[in-house]
Amino acid sequence: MTTYSPPIRDMQFVINDVLQISRFSNLPGFADATEDMISAILEEGGKLAANVLHPINHSGDQEGCTRHADGSVTTPKGFKEAYDAFREGGWQGLSFDPEYGGQGLPFVIAMAFNEMVSSANMAFGMYPGLARGAADAIHVHGTDEQKQTYLPKMIAGEWGGTMNLTEPHCGTDLGLLRAKAVPQGDGSYKISGQKIFISAGEHDLTDNIIHLVLARIEGAPAGVKGISLFIVPKFMVNADGSLGARNGVSCGKIEEKMGIHANSTCVMNYDEAVGYLLGEEHKGLKAMFTMMNEARLGVAMQGLSISEVSYQNGAAYAKDRLQGRALTGVKAPDKPADPIIVHPDVRRMLLEQKATIEGARVWMYNSALQADLAHKSEDSGDREKADDYLGLMTPVLKAYLTEKGYWHATNAQQVLGGHGYIGEWGMEQFVRDARIAMIYEGANGIQALDLVGRKLMKDGGRAWQVWFAEIDEFVKDNQGNDELKPFLDGLSESKADLIDAIQWMGANAMTNFDNAGAASMDLLHMFALTALAQGWAMTAKVAIEKKAAAGGDAFYENKLLTGRFFLERILPDRKANLAKLKTGAGSLMALPAEAF
Amino acid sequence: MTTYSPPIRDMQFVINDVLQISRFSNLPGFADATEDMISAILEEGGKLAANVLHPINHSGDQEGCTRHADGSVTTPKGFKEAYDAFREGGWQGLSFDPEYGGQGLPFVIAMAFNEMVSSANMAFGMYPGLARGAADAIHVHGTDEQKQTYLPKMIAGEWGGTMNLTEPHCGTDLGLLRAKAVPQGDGSYKISGQKIFISAGEHDLTDNIIHLVLARIEGAPAGVKGISLFIVPKFMVNADGSLGARNGVSCGKIEEKMGIHANSTCVMNYDEAVGYLLGEEHKGLKAMFTMMNEARLGVAMQGLSISEVSYQNGAAYAKDRLQGRALTGVKAPDKPADPIIVHPDVRRMLLEQKATIEGARVWMYNSALQADLAHKSEDSGDREKADDYLGLMTPVLKAYLTEKGYWHATNAQQVLGGHGYIGEWGMEQFVRDARIAMIYEGANGIQALDLVGRKLMKDGGRAWQVWFAEIDEFVKDNQGNDELKPFLDGLSESKADLIDAIQWMGANAMTNFDNAGAASMDLLHMFALTALAQGWAMTAKVAIEKKAAAGGDAFYENKLLTGRFFLERILPDRKANLAKLKTGAGSLMALPAEAF
Repeated sequence: MTTYSPPIRDMQFVINDVLQISRFSNLPGFADATEDMISAILEEGGKLAANVLHPINHSGDQEGCTRHADGSVTTPKGFKEAYDAFREGGWQGLSFDPEYGGQGLPFVIAMAFNEMVSSANMAFGMYPGLARGAADAIHVHGTDEQKQTYLPKMIAGEWGGTMNLTEPHCGTDLGLLRAKAVPQGDGSYKISGQKIFISAGEHDLTDNIIHLVLARIEGAPAGVKGISLFIVPKFMVNADGSLGARNGVSCGKIEEKMGIHANSTCVMNYDEAVGYLLGEEHKGLKAMFTMMNEARLGVAMQGLSISEVSYQNGAAYAKDRLQGRALTGVKAPDKPADPIIVHPDVRRMLLEQKATIEGARVWMYNSALQADLAHKSEDSGDREKADDYLGLMTPVLKAYLTEKGYWHATNAQQVLGGHGYIGEWGMEQFVRDARIAMIYEGANGIQALDLVGRKLMKDGGRAWQVWFAEIDEFVKDNQGNDELKPFLDGLSESKADLIDAIQWMGANAMTNFDNAGAASMDLLHMFALTALAQGWAMTAKVAIEKKAAAGGDAFYENKLLTGRFFLERILPDRKANLAKLKTGAGSLMALPAEAF
Repeated sequence: MTTYSPPIRDMQFVINDVLQISRFSNLPGFADATEDMISAILEEGGKLAANVLHPINHSGDQEGCTRHADGSVTTPKGFKEAYDAFREGGWQGLSFDPEYGGQGLPFVIAMAFNEMVSSANMAFGMYPGLARGAADAIHVHGTDEQKQTYLPKMIAGEWGGTMNLTEPHCGTDLGLLRAKAVPQGDGSYKISGQKIFISAGEHDLTDNIIHLVLARIEGAPAGVKGISLFIVPKFMVNADGSLGARNGVSCGKIEEKMGIHANSTCVMNYDEAVGYLLGEEHKGLKAMFTMMNEARLGVAMQGLSISEVSYQNGAAYAKDRLQGRALTGVKAPDKPADPIIVHPDVRRMLLEQKATIEGARVWMYNSALQADLAHKSEDSGDREKADDYLGLMTPVLKAYLTEKGYWHATNAQQVLGGHGYIGEWGMEQFVRDARIAMIYEGANGIQALDLVGRKLMKDGGRAWQVWFAEIDEFVKDNQGNDELKPFLDGLSESKADLIDAIQWMGANAMTNFDNAGAASMDLLHMFALTALAQGWAMTAKVAIEKKAAAGGDAFYENKLLTGRFFLERILPDRKANLAKLKTGAGSLMALPAEAF
C-alpha cells in the first residue's frame, strides 16, 4: 500500500524563501499570508490529504463510481465523508473572492494545497477542482444576479460544478459542436444535446451541480463564432436560494476508463434543460477559456502531484528493498543484501523525478503567483508582465508536467520491479491516473500548438522577450557567485539554445506553417527545460545563502546536489530537441497519408 | 474496438530482401524455408493471429483468469479453443528440433510468427512462449530420458511449461533464494517453497504443465553457487508416457495486475513436490539462463509487437477522425474537417513508432537469424561471431524495444485523445499490457547492467569490435551511392559517438564501477540507436535498388521517407545520451540515501 507525506518543508522553502511572497504584502490577501499562516494552512491541509484523502485513494480506484437505474451516481465508499471534511474545512474558498465567502488568500497558497490534494487522491480532487473552474467562469462572466445565486454555495462547497464541451464527434474542434439552445423569451434557454467525457458530471457529494455547457443558439453562425456558454443547474434554484425541480439533464452512462475510477466521467444528456446565458451570445468560447486556463494549471499540477507521490513511494521502496550488492562493494554487511538505492541506475530513475519535481515546484508556484499579480498588482505594467508570463507558460506547464508525471509514475513503478505491476502495491494506479492528464483539457499536442500558434508571437513575442530579460538580469546580478556559476551557465546556455530555436522558427515557420507544427513539441520542451533551469538557479541561490548558517541541517546542501543532477542529466535533453526541431517539417509531411 | 492486420509484406521484405536468408540454404532447415514456404507460413500464421487470437484480446483482458477453490485455473472465454487451433496447427514446433517432433525451420521464421501472436494477443502468446523456453532448457540440459519424456508432448503443444525463479524476498538477486530440494535417494527430490509472479503457472489449456524450478539442495553452498534447477511436472508422468498422480504443486493465488489479465500470473506453492534435477547440481542458474536468453528475445519481440498493433490502430484513427483543419489550409474541403493526420505533431507521434518498428524489425529478425547461425553454421568462426552478436544485443533489444513498446502504445493512445482513455476502444489495454515487458525477464535496468557488466568487455570487447568492423565494411562497400549517403553518414556518426562512449567507459569505469552503472542505460540506448541505424541503412540500400523497377508501387519510396524520419528525428537522441553519460556517477551518487 502507498503512503503520502506532504512535502511541507519544500513548499515553505519555495513560497517563503525562493519566491519570497512576503514581498507582496501590500496586495489584497497577501498581508494575511504570513509565514505562520502559510504553515498552518499547509499543515492542516496536509493532514486532510494524508489522513483523509490518501487512505481512500486505492479503494476508490478499485470500487469506482456506480450509476444507478435512475441516473444517480454514487461515489466510492468514504468519498462523501471525505468531501464533507473538505467542505467543512472551508478549503474550496481558500483563494476565492471574499465577497462570495472565499478567504481571498493568494492563489499560490491554494495551488500548494491543491498539490497535496492531487498527490493524495487525484480522482477526489477533480470534484472540487471542476467546481472551482466553473465558479471562476461565473465570477468573471456572470451577471450580479448569477454571481449571487451560484457563487456563495459553490464556494462553500455545497454545490459542485462541471464544464461541458466535448461531444462524440467533436473534441478539439469545437466548431463542429451541435448541442443547441432555444430561447424561451423569458431570458432562459432550453438546452438539448449530448456531451461526453464530463468529469464529475453526476455524483452524491453536493446538493446541486452547476453545469456550464457550450451550445449553439438557434440561428447562430456556424463554427466557433456561433457557440455560447450556458449555466445549467442540476436542480433549479428558487428565488430564495432553495432548490426547486430537477432540470432536464441526466447522466446516461459512466465511462469505463483506464484510471481515475473514483471520478465519475459521464455521458450527459441534455433534454430541453433550462439554461441561462453566461457572458455574451456567441462568445462562449472566450468565457469557457477562463475555466480552461485555470483548469490547465490544475492539470499541470496533477502531473507534478503524481510525480511527487509516486516518487515518494518509489524512493521508500528503494531504501527498504534488499537485493544484490553495490557495484563498489558491500554497503550493508549486516544485511543479506544492500538496499537497491545503492545502484546508480535506480538513483537515476529517482533523481530524474526528484530534480524535476523540485525545479517544477518553483516554476509552478511562481506561475500561480503570477496569476495573483496579474489580478492584484497595482501597477499595470506588472499586471501585463504577469499575464504575459502566465499565458506563455500555461500550455508549457500543462504538457510538460503531465508528460513527466506519467513518466515519473512509470519509473517509480519500475523501481518496484514485479511488485510495481501488482494492483495491491498501488504504484500502477498512479500510472493509470496520471495518464489522463496528458489528454484532457487539451491534449498535449494541442498545448504545443497553442504555444507556437497563439502564444509565441503574441504582441510580437513580448512575453518571452520580457522573460529572457529577467533571466539575463538574474544572471548578471549574480556574476561572481562561483558556487552558483554552474546554475547560471546552465540557465544561460539553455536560454541561448531556446533563442536559437525561436530564431529558426522566425525564419522558417512563416513561410511554411507546417514547420511551426513540426517544431511545436520540441520547442515546448525547450521552454520547459529553460523554466526548470530558472527554477533551479533561483533555488540554488537561496540554498547557497542559507547553507552556511544551516548547522547540521543538510536541506540546502541536498538542494544543490539535486540541482547538479538536473544540470548534468536532464538539461542536456534540449540538445536533441534543438537538433530535431531544425530538421523542419519535411520528414514529417513527406509520407502520403495512405502509407501510414 | 481494435484491429490487427499482419504486416506480412514488411516481414517478407526483411526476411527475403534485407536479410536474404536464402544465402543460408545450405544450413539445416533453411533449405525448406523457401520464399513460398515463408509466405505460406506468414499467411496462415497471420490468419490465426488476426482471426482467432486478436478477437479475444479485449474480452480476455476484461474477463481475466479465474482461480477456483481447488486451485485450478480457467482461462478467459475462447482461449481454450484458440489454443486448440494453435496446437493443431503445429505452431509450437515451428523451429524446434525435428527429433522431438518439431519442424526444424529457422528460428527467424518462428520469430516472425511470434511477432504476429504477440501483436494479436500478448497474454495468449505467453502460454506457448513460456512452454517453448522450458522445452529449450530441457533440450540443452536434459538427459536423453528427460528429453524423450517431455519434449515430444511439449513441442506438440499438449503440455505447457513455466519458469519459477522469483520468491517474495528475491527477484533480481537469486542468491537469496530459499526454495529447498531434498534428495530422495532414488534420483528424485522433494521440492518445497513458494514462488511468485509465475506466468502461465496454472491454466486449462494443456493436459500437463512442466514447471522448471530453481531451488537449493539441502546442504548446498549459500548464494548463487548453491542453486539447482528442477523439472517438476504438474502431473507425474508414468513410464509409458501416460499421466499419473497430481504432484505437490498448486496455484495459491492469481495476482491482480495492471495488464496481461488473460495470462494467469500465479503464486505457486511447492509442498514436497517431486522434482528431477535438470543439468548439474548447483549449476541451476546456468541452465536457467538458456531459458532466460530466449525469453528475453521473446520479451523484446513483445515490445515490437505492441508497437506494431498500437501503431496500426493509432494510424487508422488518425486517417479517419475529422477534427480541425490543416495549418497550411483545408485539405478535405468536402468534409466538415480534415483528418487529423494532416497535423505535423500527430504524424510525429505515428512516425516515431513506424520508423522505430521498421528499423527494429530488421534488427530483431537479424538477431534471430544470428541465433540460427550460432547453432547451425558450419564455420566455428561464424558461430562465434553470431553468438557474440546475440549475447551483446539481447539485453539491448529487451530493454530498448520494451521501453519503446510502452511509449509507442502510449503515443498511439494519445492520438485517440479522450477515446484512447476509454476501455472499449482498446488502446489503453495495449499500454497496460506493454508495461510488464519493461519489468519481467530482468527489469530494464538489469539489462543495462548486463550490457556494461558482462557483455561489453567479454573477450576484450570482441563482440562490438566485430560488429563495428561489419558496419565499417558496409559503409565502405557502399561509398558512392549518393542516395544512400545520409543513411551511411547517420550510421557512421552514431557508431563514432558510441565508440566515444565506450572509450569514456574504458577510461572511467574501471576506476569507479559506479561510472559503469551510471552510464549503463544511456550506453544501452546508444547501442540500440546504432543498431537501428544499421537496420535502416540495410533497408535503404535494398529499397534504393528495388525502387526503380517498382513501377507504381510506392513501397520502396515510402521506406526511404520513413528512414529519413528516423535519421532526422530519432537518431539525434544519442547526443543527449552521450552528454549525460560523460557526466559520470558524481551527480547520481552524491545525494545521501536518507535525502531521497
